[in-house]
Amino acid sequence: MKLYDTTLAPNARRVRMFLAEKNMQVESIEINLLKGDNLTEEFRRRNPFAKVPVLELDTGEILSESVAICRYLEEIQPEPALLGTTALEKAQIEMWQRRAEFSFLMPTGMAFQHCTGFFKDRMTPNKEWGEECKKSAFGFLKLLNQHLSDFTYLAGDNFSIADITMLTTLDFGRTVDIRLNEKHEHIQRWYDLVSQRPSAKA
Amino acid sequence: MKLYDTTLAPNARRVRMFLAEKNMQVESIEINLLKGDNLTEEFRRRNPFAKVPVLELDTGEILSESVAICRYLEEIQPEPALLGTTALEKAQIEMWQRRAEFSFLMPTGMAFQHCTGFFKDRMTPNKEWGEECKKSAFGFLKLLNQHLSDFTYLAGDNFSIADITMLTTLDFGRTVDIRLNEKHEHIQRWYDLVSQRPSAKA
Repeated sequence: MKLYDTTLAPNARRVRMFLAEKNMQVESIEINLLKGDNLTEEFRRRNPFAKVPVLELDTGEILSESVAICRYLEEIQPEPALLGTTALEKAQIEMWQRRAEFSFLMPTGMAFQHCTGFFKDRMTPNKEWGEECKKSAFGFLKLLNQHLSDFTYLAGDNFSIADITMLTTLDFGRTVDIRLNEKHEHIQRWYDLVSQRPSAKA
Repeated sequence: MKLYDTTLAPNARRVRMFLAEKNMQVESIEINLLKGDNLTEEFRRRNPFAKVPVLELDTGEILSESVAICRYLEEIQPEPALLGTTALEKAQIEMWQRRAEFSFLMPTGMAFQHCTGFFKDRMTPNKEWGEECKKSAFGFLKLLNQHLSDFTYLAGDNFSIADITMLTTLDFGRTVDIRLNEKHEHIQRWYDLVSQRPSAKA
């Protein structure tokens, strides 16, 4: 398997961290987003949506979308389970994964795009919208902090893909000053726990 | 099981259509978003994120996020499979599901919120951003049309949750004039096929 990867993007790090938790190695090819390596005709043949990461299987099949790649990896190597084992646990992980994605990863990513102008050669930044996104990211942190006063990990007792999404986004959020503060003591406890995992170096 | 449902929202219709495909019935409780039924303290005890739909299990466990609810339903009643059977198929469905969500459902939903001002009592609409979202929804339709020139359904040969996401969003898109036109012949062929399924009445 070959992974078309990009060092700085939180979505790509999600997959690297997932691979590290599974202790799986794949060949990696770096795609430089700033140089537009993802916008070439060759890359679009692999992924018409021009997004990274992309996993190319030995059969030639192509998978894009970080969580679709992770689901494939979980299927071919179920242990340790990062997407749950029982029906309820799978659903709870999916629930927290999606809350973290739609209410934190998305607004943080949009705050980055719209506030920094990093991709202004290929999109129209809307600063006001970027600032709104920052506010809603902090709204999520408030709710998550309450939740983590009762639970070890996002989805309960076990570390899961939802924690990977949250950790990688929180680390990336620094680029737009989305950071934990003294009000987020329970998230801070969780952060100290998960950021010590060897996979967090991915 | 009890489903806290709301007739007009595409996310809620996704779950109803999923249930119909599985031929499962659940007790349904209507939540009126316009009246703010989802913003009450009672509702927030079930879902602090104040989003609909919510599934309450007979054990009292609560699941929110449409796809988390669908994953639970798929686990307790695997047939007919709507999330795939083999590792590759599961990953391909997840890939198309996420493409449809992040590149079509999200921008269509944001176009609705920011262009119509429907929820202006609880958010700040940004018309420019709404118009950008509309453009990016049409960008997705262009890529999807190419894809559907080669495949029967979004994820290949089998109807899946990705088709449910796409159909419900496309129907909802009319509210902000996101509609198929003469350039989308392959999506139109797919639309005619899937909208005839009995579950599409959900």
